[in-house]
Amino acid sequence: MSTATILSRIHELGAISETNDCLTRTFGSMAAIKASQLILRWMQEAGLSTRIDNIGNVRGRLESKHLNARTLVIGSHYDTVVNAGKFDGPLGILMALEVISSLPVELPFHIEIVAFSDEEGVRYHTTYLGSKVLTGAFDHSQLSLKDAAGISLGDAIRLMGGCTDQLLHDQLAAEQWLGYFEIHIEQGPVLYEKHFPVAIVTAIAGQQRSQLIFKGMAGHAGTVPMDMRQDALCCASECILIIEQWAVQYKEQVLATVGTLQVVHGASNVIPGEVVCSLDVRSADIEMIRKAHLELKEQLAATCVKRKISFEWNIVQETAPVICDPSLSALLERSILPAEPVKLVSGAGHDAVAIAAIAPVCMLFVRCFKGISHHPEEDVEAADIEAALEVARSFILQLI
Amino acid sequence: MSTATILSRIHELGAISETNDCLTRTFGSMAAIKASQLILRWMQEAGLSTRIDNIGNVRGRLESKHLNARTLVIGSHYDTVVNAGKFDGPLGILMALEVISSLPVELPFHIEIVAFSDEEGVRYHTTYLGSKVLTGAFDHSQLSLKDAAGISLGDAIRLMGGCTDQLLHDQLAAEQWLGYFEIHIEQGPVLYEKHFPVAIVTAIAGQQRSQLIFKGMAGHAGTVPMDMRQDALCCASECILIIEQWAVQYKEQVLATVGTLQVVHGASNVIPGEVVCSLDVRSADIEMIRKAHLELKEQLAATCVKRKISFEWNIVQETAPVICDPSLSALLERSILPAEPVKLVSGAGHDAVAIAAIAPVCMLFVRCFKGISHHPEEDVEAADIEAALEVARSFILQLI
Repeated sequence: MSTATILSRIHELGAISETNDCLTRTFGSMAAIKASQLILRWMQEAGLSTRIDNIGNVRGRLESKHLNARTLVIGSHYDTVVNAGKFDGPLGILMALEVISSLPVELPFHIEIVAFSDEEGVRYHTTYLGSKVLTGAFDHSQLSLKDAAGISLGDAIRLMGGCTDQLLHDQLAAEQWLGYFEIHIEQGPVLYEKHFPVAIVTAIAGQQRSQLIFKGMAGHAGTVPMDMRQDALCCASECILIIEQWAVQYKEQVLATVGTLQVVHGASNVIPGEVVCSLDVRSADIEMIRKAHLELKEQLAATCVKRKISFEWNIVQETAPVICDPSLSALLERSILPAEPVKLVSGAGHDAVAIAAIAPVCMLFVRCFKGISHHPEEDVEAADIEAALEVARSFILQLI
Repeated sequence: MSTATILSRIHELGAISETNDCLTRTFGSMAAIKASQLILRWMQEAGLSTRIDNIGNVRGRLESKHLNARTLVIGSHYDTVVNAGKFDGPLGILMALEVISSLPVELPFHIEIVAFSDEEGVRYHTTYLGSKVLTGAFDHSQLSLKDAAGISLGDAIRLMGGCTDQLLHDQLAAEQWLGYFEIHIEQGPVLYEKHFPVAIVTAIAGQQRSQLIFKGMAGHAGTVPMDMRQDALCCASECILIIEQWAVQYKEQVLATVGTLQVVHGASNVIPGEVVCSLDVRSADIEMIRKAHLELKEQLAATCVKRKISFEWNIVQETAPVICDPSLSALLERSILPAEPVKLVSGAGHDAVAIAAIAPVCMLFVRCFKGISHHPEEDVEAADIEAALEVARSFILQLI
């Protein structure tokens, strides 16, 4: 196996889709089942002890002779978003298979490669189903969740051949973990801009997703003087700039994005009476997320008072940041030397978020073309895969 | 007839709708035909010589004995927007009927009350169909326009009982006009704020309607650092504030409104890659509209360059301002004395726009509740109708 094989397998997996015109492979779909069978075969060919567990994770073990040894889990996911790229997820699975092919026969710990079945959460809007089963954190009340077609999660598991009663038995208990290591594309432009192939992930950002509502007074665009208006869109615009400027001042510590904006009953000849927009705040530091809420809420509210606009800030979702394990990350860093490694906070979520609850985690990012991800143009250069393989090999050898 | 009769007739007309839950009465609809029959009956009861012309205008004449006398047209429209108020249009028709009831029998000029069939232009997106037939400016190529149900304007006219070949014969030639007078609700908050019942309209604003397109680069809200973003929404927000500030500095000389805004493929976790918004600029001074285009285009383009956003400004529609006739307006002003009259530019369009092409026009605005219009809460106080009637009576007596 080689970088060329990794790339050809990525394209082979990328052709397995539930849609004809693009790559979409959601949890439990026929395409996902087909992909899991292919990954299972590759794991078998690599000499691993394989199985597909009850949530659809494809698992391959390389057993140490030390029966009481702990397990290093290396993995990534094989489900995708809608109209996805081919590298997000599969790259980490296939690189793990390549890395273990060159290891010594005698290992002081077990290695388990896991191809997770649900990281993107497209079908049931619940992320990390696969890694939560692996850590024993699966929430059984979610079995009644329905997808867009009305199929429950429980039925989807049974249709895949899984048994919902056995989900608990698929876990690796906390004491069994040595740690978790994942290789993933960056999904951002930093490595591309810095001309560097890999980065160490120091943390996975926490996130606060909110809905902001601005209510002013609709009016005829031709009849209400400028100084008598309560224009909800002008107010929202001022607030969007305040949010941007607030985040910019903290450089790389925080990201803030207004991604959607609706002018309610908007028309070209009507002064906007109501605007609803989203706000996504991410940081590796939970204090920054709290600070964003506190400081921005005050500044936006003051702007709304000045403009006679009523204002609501509704928090829709919150996740705490996850810090990558310093010891494991230090080993990764040593593997990159003599270069000065790039260190990044992952703004996107990963299975490591779920696993960090019970085991030390670390991640290696690989440069992707122009930072493009979740898009068919997602691409990774062979030379960067080679560079990441070197780092991963060196990392695991140091663990031995 | 009295103010109470005017109000009861407004409610009677307001109950004639093509929808059950709100007032909607578009050109040529069964509701519009029913309303025209009711207005025709009221005109007959007022002793006028009546007819419904080929475009559906309801017309009632009070003939002078001087056969070669010119005609003073007093009118307003009976079509409405969707989910309309009851006063926008009908108030002017019913007040005209009341005003002529108290005139001397001998008139030195003819008076024709016209209830126009299409001022709002909801059904065919072409305003002033009624008044354009009256002035001979009807564009026959529009007969092939289709409404949302695929019915052509020509067929709609025939279904109303009109004859498209005869539209030209419904005109009052330029030399026949003494002038045009219309009473209409203000549709804005100025009189309400100034605590004054009526205003003289000095001009009807010209309008430039544009589409602004901002194109940046979409990206993952969690992975692209703030300083690497090309966020189309942040750029549009900055431009919206520039537009607002630009217009505010010219006080009552110009109005500028961004009424719609779409984030193309917007999602809460995606940095906006493209934003499309509308811009509506209105002024009584065509130079201000040109200045807006010139100065704003430069300022917005500079902002877009600074933010690495590509920018397009597409003009969608332009109409020139119409100046109300100074002599007729002076007579109106004298009718309001001893009070210092409020003078307003109408930001909304009116049939006077079409008529001004061949005849002197003047308009009287009546205060409406909180400036609300194009909404079921549109309302006018009886005392204000009484005040406007006094002005209108005095105005016409001065013309005699």
